[in-house]
Amino acid sequence: MRFEVLARCPRTGARAGLLHTPHGVVETPAFMPVGTQATVKAMLPEELVSIGVQMILSNTYHLYLRPGHTLIERLGGLHRFMNWHRPILTDSGGFQVFSLGGMRRVTEEGVIFKSHLDGSEHLFTPELSVQVQEALGSDVAMCFDECVPYPATRSAAEEGVRRTISWARRCKEAFKGLKGGALFGIVQGSTFLDLRKLCAEALVEMDFPGYAVGGLSVGEPHREMYEVLDLMDQLLPRDKPRYLMGVGFPPNLLHAIARGMDMFDCVLPTRNGRNGGVFVEEGKLNIKNAQYAEDPSPLDPHCDCYVCKNYSRAYIRHLFKAGEILAARLCTWHNVYFLVRLVRRAREAILEGRFPDFMESFLSRYMGGFYR
Amino acid sequence: MRFEVLARCPRTGARAGLLHTPHGVVETPAFMPVGTQATVKAMLPEELVSIGVQMILSNTYHLYLRPGHTLIERLGGLHRFMNWHRPILTDSGGFQVFSLGGMRRVTEEGVIFKSHLDGSEHLFTPELSVQVQEALGSDVAMCFDECVPYPATRSAAEEGVRRTISWARRCKEAFKGLKGGALFGIVQGSTFLDLRKLCAEALVEMDFPGYAVGGLSVGEPHREMYEVLDLMDQLLPRDKPRYLMGVGFPPNLLHAIARGMDMFDCVLPTRNGRNGGVFVEEGKLNIKNAQYAEDPSPLDPHCDCYVCKNYSRAYIRHLFKAGEILAARLCTWHNVYFLVRLVRRAREAILEGRFPDFMESFLSRYMGGFYR
Repeated sequence: MRFEVLARCPRTGARAGLLHTPHGVVETPAFMPVGTQATVKAMLPEELVSIGVQMILSNTYHLYLRPGHTLIERLGGLHRFMNWHRPILTDSGGFQVFSLGGMRRVTEEGVIFKSHLDGSEHLFTPELSVQVQEALGSDVAMCFDECVPYPATRSAAEEGVRRTISWARRCKEAFKGLKGGALFGIVQGSTFLDLRKLCAEALVEMDFPGYAVGGLSVGEPHREMYEVLDLMDQLLPRDKPRYLMGVGFPPNLLHAIARGMDMFDCVLPTRNGRNGGVFVEEGKLNIKNAQYAEDPSPLDPHCDCYVCKNYSRAYIRHLFKAGEILAARLCTWHNVYFLVRLVRRAREAILEGRFPDFMESFLSRYMGGFYR
Repeated sequence: MRFEVLARCPRTGARAGLLHTPHGVVETPAFMPVGTQATVKAMLPEELVSIGVQMILSNTYHLYLRPGHTLIERLGGLHRFMNWHRPILTDSGGFQVFSLGGMRRVTEEGVIFKSHLDGSEHLFTPELSVQVQEALGSDVAMCFDECVPYPATRSAAEEGVRRTISWARRCKEAFKGLKGGALFGIVQGSTFLDLRKLCAEALVEMDFPGYAVGGLSVGEPHREMYEVLDLMDQLLPRDKPRYLMGVGFPPNLLHAIARGMDMFDCVLPTRNGRNGGVFVEEGKLNIKNAQYAEDPSPLDPHCDCYVCKNYSRAYIRHLFKAGEILAARLCTWHNVYFLVRLVRRAREAILEGRFPDFMESFLSRYMGGFYR
């Protein structure tokens, strides 16, 4: 796993780079849509490629339960199974099993949880998480971590950090990387800056090829997210890739890029798209609203995607009202394009030395400057 | 509306032709997938083109109710509204309003029915049906007909034929054809051959540019369908296009082509596809069945479509089990391709003078010869 920084913004922490993986090079910053169950919902791989998607995220927890990582391995790995031949990042399952609430019990060994599908009981350990991710053929695997809910008590956050560090060590031990994939550490610590520092320093000490920041965008004020990211920018090695987990809200993306983050994933563009929520240059809209019933304009008049070039708001609203699958397809397509293009424009701005201007002008249009 | 017959099978009634429409030429025989609500469910127009779809069917009844034909007309017509720039055939709404059962009342003037969407009351007349189809910008419009359910009493079928003829006259009177579209007559008469004859002769007398055969594939034995089609082959003009409504079961398609039918539509490939029902060269399968859980082969090993080239049965079964939209997309894609390719192969066989052999070899493989 090689990471090159091609350019740095002179006024912010933003950088443009290249991440070399077994399935090709990813130009960073990069936004990764989420393919939880071995498909980015409603999209074909070729459509993602045409949109400019370079890498996707897939979910260890879901694929372990169904159809099973051993089946996927027997069928040639996740890339072949889902016909996606570019890089794949897999999360560790940590976030999902900790989201199960009452259905799980945490021990030092790992997490015992009940499947959300059939109630069957499973023990997920750092070693199993790594083994599943390697069976899938992940290009970038994640350490199994403990993600505490927000708001967290200090003691819960402390315990989560302790376990995250201990499990990271076991993951690193278990990870073979036979297919050339890399294992990233995940920094936890909720919004406690000293715990974040402790966690980051311990992981950096273990020398991972890349670092993720987890447990953000879980309900905390944006200000607190940015404080954590400011700290991460100071503590994480400047020559290693950095991945901010679960962030896709456009202003958050730009603020994170300004703090040296390189990779992002989020279900927002796909989930919102299926429900008629549409990203537009001036904020957002819900295409199901009656005001669009006769509107001949495209979803976003500033957008040059396939959907905006060929379909009216009136048509897409009709598709939603009629319950047509194409409604979800078109809004998902546009939304993924919107975020991929936003991050690509940020990258171009970094390479051309005008990232702060780009960020300010985007934000002032997007939210009337609210998030500056 | 010009129709050319390029070749005739010397041993059956099959013919290969060209149908010239305002939106381009259709090579016949042709299978038209159904785009009820201004979208062929789960498919993009570009995908249909890539599969070889030349013409689609859309539904007057549904579009009249939602989003309304006047809105579609204001937005530039149905082709533009749905981004489909090849020919569109619209049915008249007759089949749908007669399917409403207790929710409608038939008078000589037309049909008073309650919308399946909101219960609002509407009067659909032959004149309104034609007006809606012209507002949509249909390339081939259909006369408003009375389609009696199967099995029908003789008196119900007789009354249906009388009304179908009377309404066909009114449709022809009302039809302007300003955009170059054509209006086809529809032969009804259930399985009563003398009523079919009476209806066909009356419509031929009115000199329509093409003729549809309606009220078949509604539950009658295949033998009775073929008897009606034998009669139609004798009675309908040999130089006019003929459209068999609602037929998509592969053996029915070939038997109808052998009896001089040129155009077909059916919801089978799309509806079955969404439910995991898949056409294959050796019959059919349901991909949701457990036996495909670990099957690395494509849906149909004899198929060269995008889906069969890139995805395994195991993957597609997984998508269904996981409730993913892509499941419906992939099976719909394959099924539409299967029927379009079947009809295209029939056409090539007619042009090359080997249609009977092609038909026999396909049928013996498809159903072990059961339907010969």
